[in-house]
Amino acid sequence: MKPIDTISMELAQQRQNSLTKPPGSLGQLEAIAIQLAACQGTSCPQIKQPWISVFAADHGITEEGVSAFPAVVTQEMVKNFSAGGAAITVISKQEKAYFEVVDVGVFNDVSPLPNLVSERVAPGSFNFAQQPAMNQTMLAQAMQVGKNAVARALSKGADLFIAGEMGIGNTSSAAVIISQLCQLPLANLVGRGTGVNDEQLLHKYKVLKAALNLHQADMQTPEDVLRCIGGLEIAALTGAYLECAREGLPMVVDGVIACAAALLAYEMQPAVKPWMLFGHQSIEPAQQAVFKHIDVTPILDLEMRLGEGSGAAMALPIIRLACALHANMATFEEAQVSDAH
Amino acid sequence: MKPIDTISMELAQQRQNSLTKPPGSLGQLEAIAIQLAACQGTSCPQIKQPWISVFAADHGITEEGVSAFPAVVTQEMVKNFSAGGAAITVISKQEKAYFEVVDVGVFNDVSPLPNLVSERVAPGSFNFAQQPAMNQTMLAQAMQVGKNAVARALSKGADLFIAGEMGIGNTSSAAVIISQLCQLPLANLVGRGTGVNDEQLLHKYKVLKAALNLHQADMQTPEDVLRCIGGLEIAALTGAYLECAREGLPMVVDGVIACAAALLAYEMQPAVKPWMLFGHQSIEPAQQAVFKHIDVTPILDLEMRLGEGSGAAMALPIIRLACALHANMATFEEAQVSDAH
Repeated sequence: MKPIDTISMELAQQRQNSLTKPPGSLGQLEAIAIQLAACQGTSCPQIKQPWISVFAADHGITEEGVSAFPAVVTQEMVKNFSAGGAAITVISKQEKAYFEVVDVGVFNDVSPLPNLVSERVAPGSFNFAQQPAMNQTMLAQAMQVGKNAVARALSKGADLFIAGEMGIGNTSSAAVIISQLCQLPLANLVGRGTGVNDEQLLHKYKVLKAALNLHQADMQTPEDVLRCIGGLEIAALTGAYLECAREGLPMVVDGVIACAAALLAYEMQPAVKPWMLFGHQSIEPAQQAVFKHIDVTPILDLEMRLGEGSGAAMALPIIRLACALHANMATFEEAQVSDAH
Repeated sequence: MKPIDTISMELAQQRQNSLTKPPGSLGQLEAIAIQLAACQGTSCPQIKQPWISVFAADHGITEEGVSAFPAVVTQEMVKNFSAGGAAITVISKQEKAYFEVVDVGVFNDVSPLPNLVSERVAPGSFNFAQQPAMNQTMLAQAMQVGKNAVARALSKGADLFIAGEMGIGNTSSAAVIISQLCQLPLANLVGRGTGVNDEQLLHKYKVLKAALNLHQADMQTPEDVLRCIGGLEIAALTGAYLECAREGLPMVVDGVIACAAALLAYEMQPAVKPWMLFGHQSIEPAQQAVFKHIDVTPILDLEMRLGEGSGAAMALPIIRLACALHANMATFEEAQVSDAH
């Protein structure tokens, strides 16, 4: 992992303290500017070209009836991403970010489509209620898909990376991954995903608890957890996050599924942490466990629960404003404003 | 107060339910779009031209040593606003908002300056530890200053109004106003403002507690509370909020001082509420009491405590994205995406 630039970080902290405001009064905006200074190796960071890759894949676990929406929605939404009708594509356009959707393993091949990168590893992951979600080859290939996206982003001059995901059933994988890596009871972590009712939620929990027990003995490393529980798009996100930190490209992590991938990357390589901003807090309970485990604070809390990278992308204008304030506010000296008593 | 358009509100709610996402999954962004639809009288609201007026005034209470910064900072910051070096002016420029700073009663007249509107009611409010902060004439004039700003905003075609404030000492007024109107113990509401230490915080509380007792019997109406406790800029904000609701101009309320003014306006005319969005939660304890009393949810929580309208202005891009998502996402029908089981 690339080391951050602690000298630029220190200079950025000094600049924050010199600006015409009570020290610390810009709260998280100060922390964002200072973190990006450390990543970009400059005392005045800026975001010129954000990049958004949405990784899509299907999940065998949907056979168990764990989602409010039918599995076919994954491929339908891939078409919607391609056509620009989804939330993440609307935000992406508004924020002038590069956008692509990457097919890591949707049941049916829907290529070719505009803005769709086809890197299909398999037609979905296996049903992890019955067997590991992936074999070793699928895991390696899916992680490589994420790395390839970072390479494309860098080749286009991107300076901030957002990974989104689409995959009906993937809050199931996320809850189990987070339970296993944070060693917290699954019962506190299973959420409603796209909107299951109380009865379906209990069923979802029972299916996932049994699956967790099934694989427990085989999950010795974070790689094992990812291979056993999946899915393919979560592996792609994990690969992308590791590659971002290796290349020195700061990233904004999205909701609970992206946080499961961020947690996997962190457990594999703790030095990814300083390259990560966390875009928002969703209402999925497992996400909070990741924030606590990695010890980070999300930027927004808008009660969103959509995925797609949408919560991370919503944080883009806040991150840009944090940089603008850092760069453009006057210092006490420049503005001849008196300091505290 | 102008009534909101409940038909447009209903149509906006229906549109939200038809968009390609699980119902409710955009959280507060859905509520923002629906509220603005009700204000603008259209099923697809948009913000084309936001307006920011920062009202500045000095406070006699600063004689009591309740602030970390000297009172002269008010006028120094007015110059900084004029020159574009303050946080609110940086955000304003980035977000392409109209900006003006209004002198409602700074100790020394610093006019003329670019972007400064001089409507001086008095050289600061009186020290409310000893006497009412204003007399009836000052109160009426200061509220009129706020109304005049709304008239200027409307004349320039503004479709969203943000009122900011600058006045060393004004968290003192805000805490006492909120304590009195919410009938909550002052001890839970006095905050550190620009950054007083523990000892100064205790002193601030004692001064304010004595002032609250001094005026208690004279504060029968919200107008009494405003006149007794001040300040001039808080009266201007209150007048501006009432005028926005009367003219049908939606507004974004800022931190604890703006919230004290919003509370005053709400107690005078509860029908102001549907015209108000709340930009952010600051770390001042009294602000939370206002949210609870009016029953509203702020958009951002970035641990800011700067005032100037900065927290409200930070919410601008979020509000704009809420409108863009509402207008530009595809419906399930348009995108041929399957609905929930």
